[in-house]
Amino acid sequence: MSAEKARGIWAAILTPVDAQGAIDTVRWARHARWLLKKGCHGLGVFGTTGETQSFSVAERQAGLEALLATGLPAERLMVGIGCCARSDTLALARHALAHGCRRLLALPPFFYKNVSDEGLFKSFAELIEGLGDERLELFLYHFPQVSAVPITAGLIGRLLEAYPLTLRGLKDSSGDLAHTTGLIRSFPSLAIFAGNDGDLLEVLKAGGAGTISAAANLNAAASRHVFDAFERRDMAAATAGMEKVEKVRKALEALPMIPALKAVIAHGLRDPEWRRVRPPLVELDAEALGSLLAALDAAGYAYDPEG
Amino acid sequence: MSAEKARGIWAAILTPVDAQGAIDTVRWARHARWLLKKGCHGLGVFGTTGETQSFSVAERQAGLEALLATGLPAERLMVGIGCCARSDTLALARHALAHGCRRLLALPPFFYKNVSDEGLFKSFAELIEGLGDERLELFLYHFPQVSAVPITAGLIGRLLEAYPLTLRGLKDSSGDLAHTTGLIRSFPSLAIFAGNDGDLLEVLKAGGAGTISAAANLNAAASRHVFDAFERRDMAAATAGMEKVEKVRKALEALPMIPALKAVIAHGLRDPEWRRVRPPLVELDAEALGSLLAALDAAGYAYDPEG
Repeated sequence: MSAEKARGIWAAILTPVDAQGAIDTVRWARHARWLLKKGCHGLGVFGTTGETQSFSVAERQAGLEALLATGLPAERLMVGIGCCARSDTLALARHALAHGCRRLLALPPFFYKNVSDEGLFKSFAELIEGLGDERLELFLYHFPQVSAVPITAGLIGRLLEAYPLTLRGLKDSSGDLAHTTGLIRSFPSLAIFAGNDGDLLEVLKAGGAGTISAAANLNAAASRHVFDAFERRDMAAATAGMEKVEKVRKALEALPMIPALKAVIAHGLRDPEWRRVRPPLVELDAEALGSLLAALDAAGYAYDPEG
Repeated sequence: MSAEKARGIWAAILTPVDAQGAIDTVRWARHARWLLKKGCHGLGVFGTTGETQSFSVAERQAGLEALLATGLPAERLMVGIGCCARSDTLALARHALAHGCRRLLALPPFFYKNVSDEGLFKSFAELIEGLGDERLELFLYHFPQVSAVPITAGLIGRLLEAYPLTLRGLKDSSGDLAHTTGLIRSFPSLAIFAGNDGDLLEVLKAGGAGTISAAANLNAAASRHVFDAFERRDMAAATAGMEKVEKVRKALEALPMIPALKAVIAHGLRDPEWRRVRPPLVELDAEALGSLLAALDAAGYAYDPEG
């Protein structure tokens, strides 16, 4: 068991793809390094923002190996493993652990809806016991708007009671700050992250771990600034810093997030390859990109390729 | 291109599992044969009722091979192939085609919600063109309550225009008869099946293909009786026959369908192994089974293991 509780600013890193729809590991590793340079404590690899479910288990395993082979430290990654099929989730988890990634973020099996906590408990129990690996640090992923399978407080409590050393945290992408702070109060031993970086400061004040956000793919530096100010208890600077976090988030919020983030990076790097997304997502059109760039500009944000 | 348009009574066959959570191919093949004997024109293998998403691509491929190895005719199967990842869907489709199964039923990629028709069109186009196999007879699977990604009429029209020889039909599990008959009117070249066997006769009257239903795992004979009466234009017998279809459907409708069907078969065969489901589903409890058996009895239904 690692003593350290996860904290800080994590980017739910985008996954660039090549013309054949395969993971573009060169652009991916470059972006990962840029994010760490911009202040990310860690990277949430293969999350929702990473278009993860569009890749097979084998593609995800090969991608992770390629990323690690560039020298990216395994301890700064949190790897998404949750699939619908137990054997897929197990295979991804075993592979990540074997490659030194201990922090694993698990969606519940998300095909069947309105399933019981009992059924979800069994799914996670099968995963934990199937792995039987004490290195595992499991984070649950609550994203009801996309997975349509919520992780309830009752389920968290039951898993924590059964697996207190393994269950380490949760990413709450509900976008509901009251829900996030409620979980922080109920489960003080867990590292609770918000998916919405606009909630960063309130989450930190409540005792939460930080954020694992999509917008951090552009704007991690602003979140890190807030985090560091909070750490030195400079609440005025932390509060002021949230303004920049919020402005970028607001510029993005009306748009399809993944295509929008990729388009801004493509524009910033003058690298149109970056725009590509996997179906069923579609690329941002030129008009939407133009409005977004104007909104980011008005927010005082400019993508800085040099970091 | 096969000339024959799919029609009739198809069961969305359950997938029995063993104590390790693997597909129990012996019980599966026995149930498949029983369903054909009971009057099913064909079997929808690896659909929602088959707990399909709980199995990996490799498990599904091995399962299909084992089923076919028992002598079950490939032309009487419609094989579910739709996954979130293109490479998984492609692998399943290639495998099924290589084993003589031409009729493939595809969910859309179902992780991302609120995706555009453009994105879904690209997903299906990538599948069809990636296969490049003129044996393919593609059926789309509309099940918004579970997949949460609807197949719109606009998408169907666009796919039909682009791939008129490949797109052959659709399973409409919306449970909305008006929606089903609307699709039948709009797309007369397609074989449109309802997922709800209570809609069977109305679907047939409208010119639809029939049903691919969960309840047929118990009650296919009643649906076949209606179908045959309709075929000989004995509308009185067809209408009367719907009563038995409806009664069984109503006994099941308030319950979690998959555990309920498995529990009734387990009871009928005196084979408790049949009760088993994969998490996140949970087995039907004894009290619910007792009520269900009483309701089926009141409906005049008895599971007949001998067929």
